[in-house]
Amino acid sequence: VRNIKLEIEYDGTHFYGWQIQGNTEQRTVQAEIEKALKQILNEDVKIIGAGRTDAGVHAISQIANFLTQGNFSTSIIKKALNAVLPDDIVIKSVTEVSQDFNSRFSAIKRKYRYIISLEPTAIERGFCWEVKYKIDVELMKSASVYLLGRHDFSSFCPRDFERENRFCDVKEVSFKKKSGRLIFEITADRFLRNMVRAIVGTLIDVGRGKIPVSYFKEIIDTKDRTKAGKTAPAQGLFLVKVYYK
Amino acid sequence: VRNIKLEIEYDGTHFYGWQIQGNTEQRTVQAEIEKALKQILNEDVKIIGAGRTDAGVHAISQIANFLTQGNFSTSIIKKALNAVLPDDIVIKSVTEVSQDFNSRFSAIKRKYRYIISLEPTAIERGFCWEVKYKIDVELMKSASVYLLGRHDFSSFCPRDFERENRFCDVKEVSFKKKSGRLIFEITADRFLRNMVRAIVGTLIDVGRGKIPVSYFKEIIDTKDRTKAGKTAPAQGLFLVKVYYK
Repeated sequence: VRNIKLEIEYDGTHFYGWQIQGNTEQRTVQAEIEKALKQILNEDVKIIGAGRTDAGVHAISQIANFLTQGNFSTSIIKKALNAVLPDDIVIKSVTEVSQDFNSRFSAIKRKYRYIISLEPTAIERGFCWEVKYKIDVELMKSASVYLLGRHDFSSFCPRDFERENRFCDVKEVSFKKKSGRLIFEITADRFLRNMVRAIVGTLIDVGRGKIPVSYFKEIIDTKDRTKAGKTAPAQGLFLVKVYYK
Repeated sequence: VRNIKLEIEYDGTHFYGWQIQGNTEQRTVQAEIEKALKQILNEDVKIIGAGRTDAGVHAISQIANFLTQGNFSTSIIKKALNAVLPDDIVIKSVTEVSQDFNSRFSAIKRKYRYIISLEPTAIERGFCWEVKYKIDVELMKSASVYLLGRHDFSSFCPRDFERENRFCDVKEVSFKKKSGRLIFEITADRFLRNMVRAIVGTLIDVGRGKIPVSYFKEIIDTKDRTKAGKTAPAQGLFLVKVYYK
């Protein structure tokens, strides 16, 4: 049995997220790739993704792996997948990895990017959140520092989130301003559902002056979702990179 | 009568170009804006665009102007237009200009950008041309120098192109390579129909080694469309800037 690793880019606009849902009528990235693999390998394969992106969220570099009995070369698998897959999914690379590699559990950290547009845009409207308020980026930067380190991030995930462990170790946060766009990046060992979007929604409230910087720290500490801001829209979010040892 | 200048961004994907065609069923940017203006000003206005982009071509900054009897402030016109227009058109600015300003005839030069992707992409697939061949960018750069200056560009426009004067003065050309993308920019006093796309298609043939650099100059000199390469797809092209005195 061989273990095959995929690097995947997708435009999340027309997907109900990465993961196959109970409702198999809903288009998911995982299902599209598994269907394509079945067609190519003539084998039922199950792929494991490193980041289970939500509906509408994009990936510049999602990682997944699967086990196969087949002996196609990795370059043939790549070509065949890109030929069969719809054009909102692109396989960037296919490599054979050791048996113990698991794209999800071997990952040591993930990086997400959130793009806020400070002006209306027609061309990039599907790939950013257009924020019409006047915002003070310096306030947002100051608040974002409180995210660094290991915290219980219950304030930034749905109250009914299925996992008990809500601790994440945030390794890096950054803001860049570039021609009308504000680009927020965050790297952590793991992320809870909706976490980046809830953080961005709350940071925007800080930038607008609705929430003082010091209160942003309190929001984290209360572990209470109702204290944080709205969940920012999915179309501004990108899974950018998954890190392995 | 006031003369109003618009700066417009659009995603050309779902438009039959800028200009209203004989077939009014076809969605055009000009028609959408005129319809919106009629609704706002309660007046039939005709807008003049600086660059008549083809079907599928995008604009980061198209310029248009129109005359109106109305006395709405420019900021109200901007807000009302953006409220009424579909989301693939954005009005970036509205200013009142002198009576003799004509967005088309007052323009002294235009800049177009063409984005070539050197790798498959899901996210930007509607905004570039994916070129699968190995290309030598240095060859393309060398050839592109022959474009500079005043030439008859008949080789790069349709044979049945309606205008007799096919002279254009190319002021600037540049190539930039940036994370898997090759960005070509060209600035000229005027452009013929399909000109940038025919130039890009031919430059790609140079990059692939199908056409020698020296022959590229000959193609210009022959004024024969059949000697040049294919017209590159519309979705990679952007009208970037229109210059006025």
